[in-house]
Amino acid sequence: MLKSLNPALTAEVLYILRSMGHGDVVVISDTNFPAHSVAKSTTFGRVAMMDNITMPRALGAILSVLPLDTFVDDFAMRMEVVDDPSQIPDVQAEAQAEIDRAEGASRPMIGIDRFKFYDLAKNSYAVIQTGERRFYGCVMLRKGVIPPQ
Amino acid sequence: MLKSLNPALTAEVLYILRSMGHGDVVVISDTNFPAHSVAKSTTFGRVAMMDNITMPRALGAILSVLPLDTFVDDFAMRMEVVDDPSQIPDVQAEAQAEIDRAEGASRPMIGIDRFKFYDLAKNSYAVIQTGERRFYGCVMLRKGVIPPQ
Repeated sequence: MLKSLNPALTAEVLYILRSMGHGDVVVISDTNFPAHSVAKSTTFGRVAMMDNITMPRALGAILSVLPLDTFVDDFAMRMEVVDDPSQIPDVQAEAQAEIDRAEGASRPMIGIDRFKFYDLAKNSYAVIQTGERRFYGCVMLRKGVIPPQ
Repeated sequence: MLKSLNPALTAEVLYILRSMGHGDVVVISDTNFPAHSVAKSTTFGRVAMMDNITMPRALGAILSVLPLDTFVDDFAMRMEVVDDPSQIPDVQAEAQAEIDRAEGASRPMIGIDRFKFYDLAKNSYAVIQTGERRFYGCVMLRKGVIPPQ
């Protein structure tokens, strides 16, 4: 563990988040997501695990260090429920609460169709798979910038 | 870069510091130290770089996240000047100031003979080489623990 850092942030997750640059996307997935196969196509090239915790908890840990993009609408994306795209499952509502807390304001995620989500995930920087068991527990975050002091 | 983290902490340095456990040792070296060859024998197995900054500045960044061991006297070690083991070169005095600041108290490093330093370094967790040009700009830190909240 390290001082001032959430213990859920593993060495590999820190490596991924620190090496991402502005506009790079990280996927935070549930346990059913084909994380290992999709991750093979990403920049990082293999999946990183945040085992045994829910997606919103992993997301909260990630957002404690990752700045979100402020330039674009697709700074955060959620996987839409098939045939009910406007439905917000509990797991996604919890994730939205973590985003709003980190941003200090309401910044709703945009919905992405399941197969488009897969395509975007394959072109992302990395996939981090959590222990989330609830369906549709999958989001993507786009990294922002940190200004000079 | 990441929120709340010193930008000098690269992805690889964060990976190393996060994966170390209690009692593991990291070497922070100057530019003359045989970092690449020594690092080959370490647990991490290859050198990590913190280029273009002094050793004390790299040390300060590392100590912003790395807890020091509180159980032992050799929680921090400096390479002794050959034939003048009690001399504290400026670069080591600056490093000591970073340690004292991080610890909130005076905790002097212990001196280690040059060739013993090499031997200990080969058995360490990892070697991080800085851009330090001043001679004897080499220290070792032993990782401590973070208690449950």
